[in-house]
Amino acid sequence: MDVGFIGLGKMGGGIARSLLRAGHRVTVYNRTRERAEALRKDGAAVATSVAEACRGEAVLTMVADDPALESVAFGDGGILRALPPGRLHISLSTIGIELSDKLTTEHARAGQQFVAAPVFGRPEAAETAKLVVVCAGDKKAIERAKPLLEAIGQKLVVIGERPSQANVVKLTGNFLIASVLESLSEAFAFSRKSGIDAAALLDFLTSTIFNVPVYKTYGALIVEGKHEQVGFALPLGLKDIRLILQAAEAQNVPMPVASVLRDRFLTALGRGYQDKDWSVIGQVAAEDAGLTHAKQA
Amino acid sequence: MDVGFIGLGKMGGGIARSLLRAGHRVTVYNRTRERAEALRKDGAAVATSVAEACRGEAVLTMVADDPALESVAFGDGGILRALPPGRLHISLSTIGIELSDKLTTEHARAGQQFVAAPVFGRPEAAETAKLVVVCAGDKKAIERAKPLLEAIGQKLVVIGERPSQANVVKLTGNFLIASVLESLSEAFAFSRKSGIDAAALLDFLTSTIFNVPVYKTYGALIVEGKHEQVGFALPLGLKDIRLILQAAEAQNVPMPVASVLRDRFLTALGRGYQDKDWSVIGQVAAEDAGLTHAKQA
Repeated sequence: MDVGFIGLGKMGGGIARSLLRAGHRVTVYNRTRERAEALRKDGAAVATSVAEACRGEAVLTMVADDPALESVAFGDGGILRALPPGRLHISLSTIGIELSDKLTTEHARAGQQFVAAPVFGRPEAAETAKLVVVCAGDKKAIERAKPLLEAIGQKLVVIGERPSQANVVKLTGNFLIASVLESLSEAFAFSRKSGIDAAALLDFLTSTIFNVPVYKTYGALIVEGKHEQVGFALPLGLKDIRLILQAAEAQNVPMPVASVLRDRFLTALGRGYQDKDWSVIGQVAAEDAGLTHAKQA
Repeated sequence: MDVGFIGLGKMGGGIARSLLRAGHRVTVYNRTRERAEALRKDGAAVATSVAEACRGEAVLTMVADDPALESVAFGDGGILRALPPGRLHISLSTIGIELSDKLTTEHARAGQQFVAAPVFGRPEAAETAKLVVVCAGDKKAIERAKPLLEAIGQKLVVIGERPSQANVVKLTGNFLIASVLESLSEAFAFSRKSGIDAAALLDFLTSTIFNVPVYKTYGALIVEGKHEQVGFALPLGLKDIRLILQAAEAQNVPMPVASVLRDRFLTALGRGYQDKDWSVIGQVAAEDAGLTHAKQA
């Protein structure tokens, strides 16, 4: 297919390359143009405006947060104005429920199709087309999006017909992953102070009850105190917790662990860790227990 | 080996039968004698006192909590008095760090050996010798305990030489499992109120990021609102969180999620769910979001 792709950050770059490798013709746009130019060698065409990226059959967006998507979607040169009627906007970003519902309404009003298809996976998975993609939207729109979504992930799950349902699932998944981070952080602060070899405990846990990559990957980062290499940045982690708390508040759903997570991420920002991976909350828990962080002790 | 076994509750009965099946001679004792008599058909001898269960090479204890273990270990007819010098006490119960350290000291003073070997697994795993056993203690004592511990579990991990280290690992593991319960409870309260099919979401989560039995088993109990069949009783869940919070407090380790769990379990007790499985906190979260519980909605 002939598509546009907007947003070439840690995830977007790899996803755009997966589309190119699968044989799609991709016109890329990024606010900082250097990142777009870098994809020329992979076969991408480079757009100099959002509108220029809206001339294909579909446009995919992968931007950092709600304000970023609002700025490319709405306004004079935005997707809503530039995309011809009948064409498709696929939003891969992790955004709020309210914005997803608003995009659904506005695209319908403009005679365009809208699919929300947020993805699970760190940048390595984006680069190797190993993402897990959860999508929701009108059935025909999803059929149309499928060749693209199948090109970027190892698994595609359709969760419903209202696009924001996919965003609910994505926020729920990220909340569960953040909960794993926090519970592991507390577990290792406690067990290390109790004289347990953290690596031996992690090996025990992840070879028995928690034998699954999310515990292995994040457990190792927490035990080793390695938070410099950013797979998922702390401010984005806070953003996702903020989004689920907002959506939960709108439905009168108390989420005490999500509230704890919010405070943990804020504490980590307060301590100046804004440029670290979100697993840095393991370091925060260790510090609060009077431990210098992990292996560097 | 010729051993005694004290405590034939949901877990103890199955464990004693595993020992018998493995060819050990087991003399069982239980406060309520009927439960001991029931094991005669499996080949057990029945003791009428704690002391009578202390005449073999080792005595194993599997009781509900710290007070129960204190009552069989200390005092006139207790294990400390009854067990001959040189013999071994293996404590399988989930108990506090302080009590485990006290037993270590007292057994050493009496010239006896002490090994802490708490187990992971629900009653079905106890019945089928599929438990995961974490043990700690003096190396020679552990060598001696091995034929027994290998007979009751599918995996045996030695974590250190101080018995209470095994109890630290067990409390840490149970805290992590309880955290899974709570985060799933919040996730499903939120997503159900957002109109997501809970069974479809659970299937998605447990076939991708959380593809592991603990999420599948508890996720299903929470989604289906099935908390009547008690694998692990709510009051025991609260007890384990209380024990880890006590041990964490003794080391100045704040554990905010553990504190949330304590309040959740107390709320569940306050609502009269003392006879339910600890997964009933899923129902509490659903109720707090204004949902009637799960599928029974």
